[in-house]
Amino acid sequence: MEGLLWINDPILPIDSMAADSARRRQDQLTKPRGSLGRLEEMAIKLAGMQGASAPSPDPVHILQFMSDHGVAAEGVSLYPQEVTIQMMRNIAHGGAAVSVMAEAIGARMEIIDLGILTDPGPVENVRSERLGFGTGNIAREPAMSEEQLVAAMNAGRSGVERALSNGARLLICGEMGIGNTTPATAVACALLDKPVVDMVGPGTGLNAEGIDRKRQAIESALALHLEPGRSTLDLLARLGGFDIVATTGAYITAAQRGLPILVDGFIMSAAALAAVRLQPEVRNWMIFSHTSAEPGHRLMMEALDADPYLDLGMRLGEATGGEALVPLLRLACVVHQRMATFSEAGVTEV
Amino acid sequence: MEGLLWINDPILPIDSMAADSARRRQDQLTKPRGSLGRLEEMAIKLAGMQGASAPSPDPVHILQFMSDHGVAAEGVSLYPQEVTIQMMRNIAHGGAAVSVMAEAIGARMEIIDLGILTDPGPVENVRSERLGFGTGNIAREPAMSEEQLVAAMNAGRSGVERALSNGARLLICGEMGIGNTTPATAVACALLDKPVVDMVGPGTGLNAEGIDRKRQAIESALALHLEPGRSTLDLLARLGGFDIVATTGAYITAAQRGLPILVDGFIMSAAALAAVRLQPEVRNWMIFSHTSAEPGHRLMMEALDADPYLDLGMRLGEATGGEALVPLLRLACVVHQRMATFSEAGVTEV
Repeated sequence: MEGLLWINDPILPIDSMAADSARRRQDQLTKPRGSLGRLEEMAIKLAGMQGASAPSPDPVHILQFMSDHGVAAEGVSLYPQEVTIQMMRNIAHGGAAVSVMAEAIGARMEIIDLGILTDPGPVENVRSERLGFGTGNIAREPAMSEEQLVAAMNAGRSGVERALSNGARLLICGEMGIGNTTPATAVACALLDKPVVDMVGPGTGLNAEGIDRKRQAIESALALHLEPGRSTLDLLARLGGFDIVATTGAYITAAQRGLPILVDGFIMSAAALAAVRLQPEVRNWMIFSHTSAEPGHRLMMEALDADPYLDLGMRLGEATGGEALVPLLRLACVVHQRMATFSEAGVTEV
Repeated sequence: MEGLLWINDPILPIDSMAADSARRRQDQLTKPRGSLGRLEEMAIKLAGMQGASAPSPDPVHILQFMSDHGVAAEGVSLYPQEVTIQMMRNIAHGGAAVSVMAEAIGARMEIIDLGILTDPGPVENVRSERLGFGTGNIAREPAMSEEQLVAAMNAGRSGVERALSNGARLLICGEMGIGNTTPATAVACALLDKPVVDMVGPGTGLNAEGIDRKRQAIESALALHLEPGRSTLDLLARLGGFDIVATTGAYITAAQRGLPILVDGFIMSAAALAAVRLQPEVRNWMIFSHTSAEPGHRLMMEALDADPYLDLGMRLGEATGGEALVPLLRLACVVHQRMATFSEAGVTEV
């Protein structure tokens, strides 16, 4: 697709020598071999991605994508669409979970309006890259035009470029936008060829009746848009959201530039599926933060052969699952760097 | 038992009004209700324990108990006993996992020699409260005398008192001592009436043959020491270690004084079982950090009706599992305090 030729640019390889060297160092540290479990794995993975003997998640850069979703008209969310703009202001003013956590973990966050329902005019701390007034209602029409798809992918790409120019060593993409578990579910069902009933869930808190309404909306969308032979990009344009598409572009770009990706929850995992479908080696650059309480997330993780580190029943989105893992990544890296080896400490090795 | 009458002093109640108030606040914060999952639970639990509207794990105080275990003579560990003293020095010098993590999370740590095999003389950063030159070999004799039991329980108690006088708001007990998964397994089997084969595991890394040797040693110990009607304290003296007994005393004292307890892994959970057996309400003061890779740990958690927050395949001990959870407790508390409510942020509530 014109404007997206970069998607096929090569993905950087992981530095397997750095990973092997980190693995050897872990085995020399004063602890029974493997006894720090997945903390060791975190440090080894980051070492391989960063090609570094002293891996570190810092600086962490969060791209927070705001957008609205036409399918909200089908009654697929507990919340009215006005909440998107209210939450955008709340995120920008520091009152949302993602904002409080970003400050607490010392992460830089860029908030990007990709097209919420109403143009808010200039909002402090928000970058405007509006692609429309929300997407189309996927149950009845495509989510976006080809031009919008290209622009959304490129918005994700340029976000990563700004992150890199700010020195980022770890990328977290997040999202907020009423209704967006619906396009995420639709994209996942389409890419994984799963029945909607296996993938659909309560999102922000639908009851059984609401989930059934959401299931019907997604089934309508799939009936309308799924046709044999449709490309991944075409499916994204028809079923996705600006947030999912921008994140897909961001993930591919990060993997092309060698920036480790910390994948958040349900919606970002739909983008992960799309990015890996477009460029399978993007998977090598992904660290999976947590298992969402949204039931379909486990199926997505299986499909990505991913075993997320945390399972805390979180289902907020906004990058918060990714943020929650950052302190553990940091601990894993500090332990990797600062622990004494058997020979340094004069401890008998077996 | 004389010298331990304090065990029966009342356990402080949890402040259920503070917990309820924290729960109500969580429901007013700008996120779908319950969507931060167990991060919400962490803040609510700490609020109830601390009777605080602004709960916080800080300052965190670690009591690191060092001791040797006579049962090491049965070949139950991969490592020789000399590693205990080597690791005590390494912990004191800042090179061990627990030390690096304590510094990284900003926790105060007190290292207490309860009786390692050789008297090391004065060691900087180590408090000497030696109760012997290791315990007896539980496969052939009691671990300790009644006097040693009393002294070990009191060592734990006075450790908590020092923690409190330093302003601690969260207690983590840790341990290091070659062979100590064996007494922990024996204590757990005795208290839970479980067959050894269900509870025994590789510890620091035994192979199948080693695990079998360890199983036989524990079975010998149980055959020698288990008799109907023996008290929990008597079982601790016969099967325990100085570390497990001191921690049992520390946990009971913490619950009597209103200091929240963050339980580490396998060995500390044996102490948790003993403490709760002696005083069931101690359970209310416990937060369970992680599920150890040591297979029997799941049975202990079941018996304690505990659902640890992390499951990262860790099996190092030394308080490291507890330390790993601290940054998440901190995030949970910061989110609880600093997020905007629906009315503060002007976000529509449903």
